Amino acid sequence: MAVFTQVDARDLEAFWAQYDLGEVESLKGIAEGVENSNFFVETADARYILTLFEKRVAEDDLPYFVGLMDHVAAAGFSCPQPMWTKSGKAIGRLSQRPALVTSFLPGLAVRRPSVADCASLGTTLARFHGASKGYAGKRPNNLSRSNWQAMHGQICEDVAARNQDWARLAEESLQKLNAQWPSALPMGHIHADLFPDNVFFRHGEVSGFIDFYFACEDMLAYDLAICINAWCFEGDGSLNVTKSAAFLNGYSQRRPLEPAEKEALPLLALGAGLRFFLTRAHDVIHHDPSWLVTPKDPNEYAHRMRTHLRARSAQDYGLWS
Amino acid sequence: MAVFTQVDARDLEAFWAQYDLGEVESLKGIAEGVENSNFFVETADARYILTLFEKRVAEDDLPYFVGLMDHVAAAGFSCPQPMWTKSGKAIGRLSQRPALVTSFLPGLAVRRPSVADCASLGTTLARFHGASKGYAGKRPNNLSRSNWQAMHGQICEDVAARNQDWARLAEESLQKLNAQWPSALPMGHIHADLFPDNVFFRHGEVSGFIDFYFACEDMLAYDLAICINAWCFEGDGSLNVTKSAAFLNGYSQRRPLEPAEKEALPLLALGAGLRFFLTRAHDVIHHDPSWLVTPKDPNEYAHRMRTHLRARSAQDYGLWS
Repeated sequence: MAVFTQVDARDLEAFWAQYDLGEVESLKGIAEGVENSNFFVETADARYILTLFEKRVAEDDLPYFVGLMDHVAAAGFSCPQPMWTKSGKAIGRLSQRPALVTSFLPGLAVRRPSVADCASLGTTLARFHGASKGYAGKRPNNLSRSNWQAMHGQICEDVAARNQDWARLAEESLQKLNAQWPSALPMGHIHADLFPDNVFFRHGEVSGFIDFYFACEDMLAYDLAICINAWCFEGDGSLNVTKSAAFLNGYSQRRPLEPAEKEALPLLALGAGLRFFLTRAHDVIHHDPSWLVTPKDPNEYAHRMRTHLRARSAQDYGLWS
Repeated sequence: MAVFTQVDARDLEAFWAQYDLGEVESLKGIAEGVENSNFFVETADARYILTLFEKRVAEDDLPYFVGLMDHVAAAGFSCPQPMWTKSGKAIGRLSQRPALVTSFLPGLAVRRPSVADCASLGTTLARFHGASKGYAGKRPNNLSRSNWQAMHGQICEDVAARNQDWARLAEESLQKLNAQWPSALPMGHIHADLFPDNVFFRHGEVSGFIDFYFACEDMLAYDLAICINAWCFEGDGSLNVTKSAAFLNGYSQRRPLEPAEKEALPLLALGAGLRFFLTRAHDVIHHDPSWLVTPKDPNEYAHRMRTHLRARSAQDYGLWS
């Protein structure tokens, strides 16, 4: 949660003059996002979010993200809408970073999601998957199965040195995932980072998603697996089956899950758990104290992985029908 | 630059219900301020800043700050205005912290102040000193001369161990300040933290001040000394006399400085330099890597102090008349 790159008011003025959005009246860095620098920008008429992309986001991927936001917004899905310069560009340059201006999406992120919040998330995620259909952009998921082995390889010695339990858990999970990872599930454009920070609520319902900078093509059900990990576990590490049931049923009402998707659910949840475990373990092991971001605890995700390893079917997540 | 304390959307709703400000539509942590957590809050009609006070701000001092903002706003000075609950309170409690809601002040902070910016700052500071006249609140400056010796004593061994030059510089400055610190200059309510982050501009003029949480009673000219340190030095460490002249003349046009104030200027500038040097040195020496804030470099202020030690009169800062 930080602003990594500063913006000078005069540089902003020159940058902003490329757009037809009125004069800037206020600029505030937002303590949001761990990958990019975000700013709230106000003009006389409207509010915008300015994002400067830091080095963990590949510049070549930006047109995919911009196109996806445009596509789902055109299909009626509520998300930040990219703004285009007078000469028709969406990606500019500011403070030596690629820069994007989007519309401001009102709403509040919840920190302790309720059962009703999880149900609303499910419905909205199905709407998002529907809205992204037909988008022609291409971006493989470079944080999925084919990369876990390499990610794990890079950090396994460090992980083992740090924590033998972590090493055994990652090894066991990788073996299982490599042996059983599904290959024929419905594919689509997924958000791939739907943590509560990235979902806004208004009047008790999800009002939209933000932060599409991990979005990619993958199995739609993998997006659900990420949400189960991020939304349905309690502070004590236990899975709240009432929440996962509400989430999965909310989703299924809009897009019924295929039998193979249901069957794969425990495995997909384990895969999503491993993905966040590995990146968190990497960030903890390679943490530079001068960074502005405190790494998140990998143990949270180690604990979730153990739950997914024990799960036998989608029923363990409250999905019966 | 960080949000130290998180706010849950539901806790915010309950807190906000005490006010008559309409429903919250959006909440965003602002990467601003190194002492408190700040949030941008939007309702259908207006925008507000919510501040949660962290432990470095004494709760007993809050009524002074609120009263000062109220007083200068009533006198026509542009600053955030405290909002009062329906039951007439300005300081509430949220996320286990004292909490204040103020109006949102538009404007942009500049990172590289120009000569014209310094002139506008001078005029506005004189207006602020005029507007704060008659405010009955009481708060001594606990980061001024009577405390430097103690601050220095607490950290001098650590400073000496870290850097012999720092130790010699602090010792020489303290001796000079103790021998010559003025006692009969005009007093008033000063902002005491007017770094560029805390000054907003619109259309090339200062539009207002924010962050009054170091404000106190002290010599008015001491506020000028802080500004000279914070606004009139270049990236290479040199004093830009054109900027300090523009600043001092801007101020003098509204409130002519007394001869004793002019005479004391180099010493006041040295005192202000020492104050920020000591707190920065403290933060560097006692830095806990888990903190969300990267300490600022004390050397910047060590260099300024050397400049002030060499200065012989206000003319060295461009003030002739």
